[in-house]
Amino acid sequence: MPNKPKNAFYAQSGGVTAVINASAAGLIETARLHKDKIGKVYAGNNGIIGALTEELIDTSKESIRDIRRLRHTPSGAFGSCRYKLKSLEQNQREYERLISVFSAHNIGYFFYNGGGDSADTCLKISQLSKEMKFPIQAIHVPKTVDNDLPVTDNCPGFGSVAKYIAISTREASFDVASMCKTSTKVFVLEVMGRHAGWIAAAGGLAADENNDLPIIILFPEITFNKTKFLAEVKRKVKQYGYVSIVVSEGVRDRSGRFLADQGLVDAFGHAQLGGVAPVIANMVKQKLGYKFHWGVADYMQRAARHIASRNDVEQAYALGKAAVEMAIAGKNSVMPTIKRTSNNPYKWEIGSANLNRVANVEKMMPRSFITKDGFGITKRCRTYLEPLISGEDYPPYKNGMPDYVTLKKQMVPKKLKQEFKIS
Amino acid sequence: MPNKPKNAFYAQSGGVTAVINASAAGLIETARLHKDKIGKVYAGNNGIIGALTEELIDTSKESIRDIRRLRHTPSGAFGSCRYKLKSLEQNQREYERLISVFSAHNIGYFFYNGGGDSADTCLKISQLSKEMKFPIQAIHVPKTVDNDLPVTDNCPGFGSVAKYIAISTREASFDVASMCKTSTKVFVLEVMGRHAGWIAAAGGLAADENNDLPIIILFPEITFNKTKFLAEVKRKVKQYGYVSIVVSEGVRDRSGRFLADQGLVDAFGHAQLGGVAPVIANMVKQKLGYKFHWGVADYMQRAARHIASRNDVEQAYALGKAAVEMAIAGKNSVMPTIKRTSNNPYKWEIGSANLNRVANVEKMMPRSFITKDGFGITKRCRTYLEPLISGEDYPPYKNGMPDYVTLKKQMVPKKLKQEFKIS
Repeated sequence: MPNKPKNAFYAQSGGVTAVINASAAGLIETARLHKDKIGKVYAGNNGIIGALTEELIDTSKESIRDIRRLRHTPSGAFGSCRYKLKSLEQNQREYERLISVFSAHNIGYFFYNGGGDSADTCLKISQLSKEMKFPIQAIHVPKTVDNDLPVTDNCPGFGSVAKYIAISTREASFDVASMCKTSTKVFVLEVMGRHAGWIAAAGGLAADENNDLPIIILFPEITFNKTKFLAEVKRKVKQYGYVSIVVSEGVRDRSGRFLADQGLVDAFGHAQLGGVAPVIANMVKQKLGYKFHWGVADYMQRAARHIASRNDVEQAYALGKAAVEMAIAGKNSVMPTIKRTSNNPYKWEIGSANLNRVANVEKMMPRSFITKDGFGITKRCRTYLEPLISGEDYPPYKNGMPDYVTLKKQMVPKKLKQEFKIS
Repeated sequence: MPNKPKNAFYAQSGGVTAVINASAAGLIETARLHKDKIGKVYAGNNGIIGALTEELIDTSKESIRDIRRLRHTPSGAFGSCRYKLKSLEQNQREYERLISVFSAHNIGYFFYNGGGDSADTCLKISQLSKEMKFPIQAIHVPKTVDNDLPVTDNCPGFGSVAKYIAISTREASFDVASMCKTSTKVFVLEVMGRHAGWIAAAGGLAADENNDLPIIILFPEITFNKTKFLAEVKRKVKQYGYVSIVVSEGVRDRSGRFLADQGLVDAFGHAQLGGVAPVIANMVKQKLGYKFHWGVADYMQRAARHIASRNDVEQAYALGKAAVEMAIAGKNSVMPTIKRTSNNPYKWEIGSANLNRVANVEKMMPRSFITKDGFGITKRCRTYLEPLISGEDYPPYKNGMPDYVTLKKQMVPKKLKQEFKIS
């Protein structure tokens, strides 16, 4: 009698996106096609924490239809977490627990869907085979709105945020253009990206040869220079009557301090956490006197499945599928990647990266993607970004609202007697 | 030989919306069908200011295709303004100027596309016939995201904002639900509506019988009670693990002060203008210790043509069309309205309101639309709101971006010698 095939563990990690569930759909649907190789897919309830606490969601209890609906549902359907495993030397207890849980549930595949930190965790798990003599194949499925993973041409999740920011910037710019004669002249939009300016760069796509819109981008890669910035705002308002400013939350001044961190205090002297958008808006008002509006896209930008990029959805799904195929092919300690083979027409295929090349490496915007003055994107950047936001992939609607799935999340019965406390 | 038909003046007023240009399309396309009655449609460059300064855009120079594209383009394509005419006694100079411009350009129809203030301006213009012996028919085309005009069942522009806020609240709630185990537990979304809570109410549509999401709404109609609010946040987080809070910019405390007005000062003691979202978020953090995120939808919400409500677009277009038909029928001092004739299936028809019933009257949320505890919407409110956000009406896309029109805006040659300074 052949051995019972090993089960798989799948977990979502870190900040979620509009398309991470599409990767889950690709992974689970593909695994279901290979039941001779992969038994069941157990998803961690709230990411890796679910593995430690033995809270495993039995995805085989979810209907075919509901798994398919994951493809158009934003957020992390199984719950995510911000939790980085320490090194084996620092916290052997956690690794021993993981091995207990994986053994108890016959788990031989570990799929981790996340960004740079998660790639590091995945790498550590992949080394369990060698270091703790526990056979497991660990495959990382890339996901991050920040687009800062190396090797892969781009990261699932980013294209949809970029599309949302590009569209919102265009729409808000049209709005300000209408109002600027007697009212608002400056619109400031705060976007995510603490270290890398990829998301901010997407604001630059709002303008093109048919849409002559004045846009200033403030990148985290470029040290903020107040004098130069205010001069540019003034110049644009003189020329166009208005300006839109897309500012990354990660912009810093010369001393390295985040602009958002202005030491704001309320009337009672309590410290207040503000965003960078109001800081920029107030600066413009105080120095140039222009009436302003500001918005903060926050979670809306990364959850906006309603306007996801079709290419992004397709790639997210394909990477989930590829992860399973790599596992079946016997791979360990790898991550499927996106390889761009042509810009126009845009073509891509699945590649592969060893996790030691991925873990803890951040990919910044190349300087050649930012205009000389530091306030815009170059043609090279546009060529890179445009395919990533291309195509629409609308979710189905019911009563005017997108029909997203909430899974049953039926738990696998626990087998271990010991509870585990998260430290 | 018959008299040359009178020309029409059309202007957009106040804050623009995702569908005010659909009204313009309906109006211009319908006028073009009746050239025997209405000569040309001249649009005010930046609203009524264009009439005062004799900056008239000749819409007959725009192609059929571009006028059609107005239907899917957000913002005010002809420019808007915030400018309220004073009474005839207070500023006769302005009315005399309007009559000079209208006479010079053979204008006999005045179409004003705006909210409550604009209805008042339109009413004043309609009285020129009598008071200054100048024959003109003034028709108001309703538009306001605030949904606060009386008589009409709803206002074009509102349905699309409501859809955007409902969807964003659902999407962000899914996001927080994924993150709450180890990270964010509270998401705060600031929305428009300084006086009326219609937009905030739309956040309540994020939850329904298939989407059990914890949502707290803070309405401008309900005096903010910090103790009750924090207790409700705590209760929801205990029950669900997280909560979404939709807060209207117009929320006030018992003393009548806007919550947003917290007397914030930066490190140098400069007063800072913040939003209400960070105020609420900081309050929750200080008292309950929950990690938070906050977003401010600002212009994005009212410019979001990419996810406009189909019913909203259709009604906006129909009201522009109806305004022309009323003008041809000889009406003056009226506004076409939306009359709801059935909830389920939703049915509506065009009605009519005299402007003296509309001008300067604000329609608040009925108390029966807000739950007893003041934090949610009732079934009656849902029955009212749901049809308004129903249906999608996607714009065409090009390279991943919505293809919005920018008009040529060719000016009618000036005929008056005198310039006019806006006071």
